Amino acid sequence: MTTDPSTQRSETFTWIDPAIALEKLPRLSGMDYFSGLREGSIAPPPIASLMKFDLVDARFGHVEFQCWPGEAHYNPLGMVHGGLACTLLDTVLGCAAHTTLDAGIGYTSIDLAVKYLRPITLQKDALHAEGSVVKAGPRAIFTEGRLSTTDGKLLATATSTLLVFPHQPGGK
Amino acid sequence: MTTDPSTQRSETFTWIDPAIALEKLPRLSGMDYFSGLREGSIAPPPIASLMKFDLVDARFGHVEFQCWPGEAHYNPLGMVHGGLACTLLDTVLGCAAHTTLDAGIGYTSIDLAVKYLRPITLQKDALHAEGSVVKAGPRAIFTEGRLSTTDGKLLATATSTLLVFPHQPGGK
Amino acid sequence: MTTDPSTQRSETFTWIDPAIALEKLPRLSGMDYFSGLREGSIAPPPIASLMKFDLVDARFGHVEFQCWPGEAHYNPLGMVHGGLACTLLDTVLGCAAHTTLDAGIGYTSIDLAVKYLRPITLQKDALHAEGSVVKAGPRAIFTEGRLSTTDGKLLATATSTLLVFPHQPGGK
Amino acid sequence: MTTDPSTQRSETFTWIDPAIALEKLPRLSGMDYFSGLREGSIAPPPIASLMKFDLVDARFGHVEFQCWPGEAHYNPLGMVHGGLACTLLDTVLGCAAHTTLDAGIGYTSIDLAVKYLRPITLQKDALHAEGSVVKAGPRAIFTEGRLSTTDGKLLATATSTLLVFPHQPGGK
Repeated sequence: MTTDPSTQRSETFTWIDPAIALEKLPRLSGMDYFSGLREGSIAPPPIASLMKFDLVDARFGHVEFQCWPGEAHYNPLGMVHGGLACTLLDTVLGCAAHTTLDAGIGYTSIDLAVKYLRPITLQKDALHAEGSVVKAGPRAIFTEGRLSTTDGKLLATATSTLLVFPHQPGGK
Repeated sequence: MTTDPSTQRSETFTWIDPAIALEKLPRLSGMDYFSGLREGSIAPPPIASLMKFDLVDARFGHVEFQCWPGEAHYNPLGMVHGGLACTLLDTVLGCAAHTTLDAGIGYTSIDLAVKYLRPITLQKDALHAEGSVVKAGPRAIFTEGRLSTTDGKLLATATSTLLVFPHQPGGK
Repeated sequence: MTTDPSTQRSETFTWIDPAIALEKLPRLSGMDYFSGLREGSIAPPPIASLMKFDLVDARFGHVEFQCWPGEAHYNPLGMVHGGLACTLLDTVLGCAAHTTLDAGIGYTSIDLAVKYLRPITLQKDALHAEGSVVKAGPRAIFTEGRLSTTDGKLLATATSTLLVFPHQPGGK
Repeated sequence: MTTDPSTQRSETFTWIDPAIALEKLPRLSGMDYFSGLREGSIAPPPIASLMKFDLVDARFGHVEFQCWPGEAHYNPLGMVHGGLACTLLDTVLGCAAHTTLDAGIGYTSIDLAVKYLRPITLQKDALHAEGSVVKAGPRAIFTEGRLSTTDGKLLATATSTLLVFPHQPGGK
């Protein structure tokens, strides 16, 4: 395909080496981690740059993020790809679980189930995502969350289950 | 936070205006759409650039994609964010359903459920994703898919349900 | 196995021929159906006898049921089988969707996803299940529900998606 | 409602006190438990009587059950209630996980997600359900299963995740 240059688009995304924040992670409680993220002493992960979301609020068992989807996130059907909703909802659900953990305790998501209620298109205002812990047990944490427009229209809902364990990133 | 410049990373992603492919979509059968995508007469959607995946094979009821995750897709836990697996699996499941559709018939995903079996880390080889139609009815198509390493280690499984309807993108 | 007669248990369950209520169903709105069920002019389905649940409340978009599990519902692990929670949650989610439908419109569940938060054991009081419509569209209705003990301990959560269509029972 | 006696139905279900099998459970490996169930030295759980299913085959990581649904399992829509499919699929998925466990290791389902592909109606032949382990890790076991008619028509699919732990029934 010879591409008409006028139809080409590009965008540059920037992030901080994630190994730096990762090295601190095992020594921080969940709430300390989110305090650091809000103050700027801990850098957000690379995916947050690519998907254009950031933390708005974190309390014990509950977090809120904002997101600004762009054309870079479009699928072939003329709307934002469902993967953006998944990425954002996986994030708020994982972070909601993380807020409840002491230093030295790791977690990993073992599933994510998303219901796509309405198509997501470009908005002048940010999308709003929130995640909450439904039940935190000694082995598993159950969470649920929602993605909405700024004026409160519900776009997607999700649930996720996470396992917790003494810190060793990535085990399942 | 004063950022040490040596820890900063950036990457530029490029895509084609998705409105061009979208305009052709209602006049193509699913199989014609994927033929165009493979030949290059139809541009892949922007999200495929951001998430670094592309089509490997499309047959009636089955598609395969490859993906090359990078540091840009990392989460705070030192591995590729689950959202990349979701985006890729949502894609192969939607595309598997699309292969079965005649011209003039649209589709939309109404859910995605992913099981994260193993952490995804940077690999020298591509990840492999495949999606298949389990049952195609007149109103709903049920699909399932898998994400694996090149040497066959299963990383994630997923199911998705899609609604089909006369073409009008985005309706649910 | 020679069975010690003292360890044998049995229970007899009774219901009304479900064909009678089924014949009326296409001519009733959802709210009229539930009014009939509460007044007794419409018989509950056989499964309600077997699983020991009945309707407590039905409003537009929301229903509540009670359930009295017994030893008959036990699994091999010394607790009530998860299938009872599924049956009850599938019921409240289907009924919540049904409350929103006009006469002549049918519905069918296409999925049920249940999270088992806590084991269910024999209780002196009834279990309480409720289901709500999250979003009702022209083709699909999204619902969510919860199962709790009488004193408010959450036992399970669930989501279900239902398709709606002009009445012809069982189509999918 | 004055009930016409000719429309009343009843059925008596019989089972063995489940406490007897439960007492043996912690001392048996999964495969020994299923051997006992097939030989008759271990009684099936009460729910198997109510839902009319029984074990056909159990190998390491895979089980098969048969089921004979009856009018007792009907929902208000003129077909077998989805809860029967859920109960049967939850059973085969839990049992598939159980086959992989050593004596002294317990398990509990933390979720069940079912896709209802086709309505289930009374059949002259048994339904066939099978469950397989997709991945067994030290903390979580991922499973998937299918429910079909005897002649191979797929009725429902399901996934379930189970947690494993040193034996203490019911913990989550």
